[in-house]
Amino acid sequence: MAKYVIGFDLGGTKMAAALMTPKFEVKARSRQRSKAHESGDDIYGRIVNTIRDAVGEAKIDPKKELVGIGVGSPGPLDPETGTIIDCANLNWSDFPLGKKLEKEFGCPVVVDNDVNVGTYGEFHFGAGRGSKHLVGIFPGTGIGGGLVLDGRIYHGASGSAGEVGHMTLDPDGPNCGCGKPGCYEAYAGRNVIAAAAATVALRGQAPTLLKNKGSDVRTIRSGALKRSVAGGDKEVETVVRRAAYQIGILGANLINVLSPDTLVLGGGLVEAMPDLFRDEVKRALKTHAMPFLRKFCTLKIAELGDDATIMGAAKLVVEKIEA
Amino acid sequence: MAKYVIGFDLGGTKMAAALMTPKFEVKARSRQRSKAHESGDDIYGRIVNTIRDAVGEAKIDPKKELVGIGVGSPGPLDPETGTIIDCANLNWSDFPLGKKLEKEFGCPVVVDNDVNVGTYGEFHFGAGRGSKHLVGIFPGTGIGGGLVLDGRIYHGASGSAGEVGHMTLDPDGPNCGCGKPGCYEAYAGRNVIAAAAATVALRGQAPTLLKNKGSDVRTIRSGALKRSVAGGDKEVETVVRRAAYQIGILGANLINVLSPDTLVLGGGLVEAMPDLFRDEVKRALKTHAMPFLRKFCTLKIAELGDDATIMGAAKLVVEKIEA
Repeated sequence: MAKYVIGFDLGGTKMAAALMTPKFEVKARSRQRSKAHESGDDIYGRIVNTIRDAVGEAKIDPKKELVGIGVGSPGPLDPETGTIIDCANLNWSDFPLGKKLEKEFGCPVVVDNDVNVGTYGEFHFGAGRGSKHLVGIFPGTGIGGGLVLDGRIYHGASGSAGEVGHMTLDPDGPNCGCGKPGCYEAYAGRNVIAAAAATVALRGQAPTLLKNKGSDVRTIRSGALKRSVAGGDKEVETVVRRAAYQIGILGANLINVLSPDTLVLGGGLVEAMPDLFRDEVKRALKTHAMPFLRKFCTLKIAELGDDATIMGAAKLVVEKIEA
Repeated sequence: MAKYVIGFDLGGTKMAAALMTPKFEVKARSRQRSKAHESGDDIYGRIVNTIRDAVGEAKIDPKKELVGIGVGSPGPLDPETGTIIDCANLNWSDFPLGKKLEKEFGCPVVVDNDVNVGTYGEFHFGAGRGSKHLVGIFPGTGIGGGLVLDGRIYHGASGSAGEVGHMTLDPDGPNCGCGKPGCYEAYAGRNVIAAAAATVALRGQAPTLLKNKGSDVRTIRSGALKRSVAGGDKEVETVVRRAAYQIGILGANLINVLSPDTLVLGGGLVEAMPDLFRDEVKRALKTHAMPFLRKFCTLKIAELGDDATIMGAAKLVVEKIEA
């Protein structure tokens, strides 16, 4: 009898499951868009349904053939117990996701932070193959960070290490959404970039952006920024390059403290403009990382996109089963 | 027959050895001051003599009863092989210290970075007892950092992780001795503090310092700064407090990325003015560390002084023997 695991990505805008063999060959997939204003219990119900869909698609017997479920979830959460401590988006507070899924499907479940799990996916199957110490930076609305040290996800005392977007670029800088002054996210988060681009558009220096998206920060997402830069909006390019350089300063500082062998850049902004990000980050590393540590570190762009979390989650639960 | 290990601290100004039981009871000690302009081989010879002195003091038979030597050394070095890659102070370049001592004394030797080893000493025997994830910051001429993650010294890909003094406080700041702009060390290293204090003294606002030490940066060491502050030089106190606060911003950023359970402050400046440093660092943590991570972390002042390195080195070699 064959055995299968589920890798699950519980994202802000969608949830996705993949059923795969313990060798990580995908047999079936399912996904659903997130719905706004759903209750925590309804969201849980849809997670169960999404898993059942993948299982049904593959026509396997979940009672006998489904041997584990790995989940990448927003946090903060406790990776030891699989309890989501607090997640406003999902309407969960101290929600025992891991325990509930274990009871529902009668198999081991691992729940970890989505950025950690995505980083772990890249570590094993993507840009980080062959790495031992990997740091992932994922700029988007927030700037996520994942640490794989000595081959394992590093959680720290709180379970939530890796808040790289809330490290300090300027102690006297503008307030971040988290309330602290001068976080990298307050400079290079997507909404901040979008706001600066909107300002440029309003003063008539970004015709492509203005035509396509106007000046509503909410509508200026990674794709819009990419098209603006590609369309010749030089001042928008300057805005994005500055933010990318700041991400590079962050990367340099993570090299200085952690000396990883691999620095992976991923997330929506980087996927939209990989060359721009690679160039600016490389330039920043040259100025701000110690040469002796930098020479041990390779800069990579993430390779797996959304599959990073699904694959990383599957890997985590396979390790738990085989332990 | 009893068995003993040596813990060895190879410092910039002195070297010290302690012979102890595998339960870390010290049986004998020896130490020597460093000599200027000594050749690498002469320094090695004095290391051997210092160890022999401790062994002789305890009247044990090194061939039979000395079972291991642990050394904390300046680096960069390779902790796998015990080779010092490059150390100008010691006139060593690719110097196989570990292998040479193993041959000399016929027992296992561990060599690791002095700051790492000191941090490990505090972790096991000092301020970090009971910790699992500990970050040490040691402000002095340089600002050293040691990381003990999941109970083990973290080395990273280069073997030299933890260059916290060369993380960036201000990307556009003044050049550091390392050549990079705006490192914490370029703001809060002892010589920088001393230079600012000398300026204050020259403009007549630090009578105690001026009387005791004049305005030569070289002579204004931690003790002189302590006496100046204690003697009522308010402007010098402001200078030192600003630097201590900057060390606190560094600590906050290490909490944000690593989420340690313990943050230890040590080194000459902190030993001279522990309350001042504790106050300013605590204040900075409140502003710059994420509350969710900060609440898992206790701020401690190092307890072992110079013995941290000796004890940490002994612990490392006992672990190697018992592995």
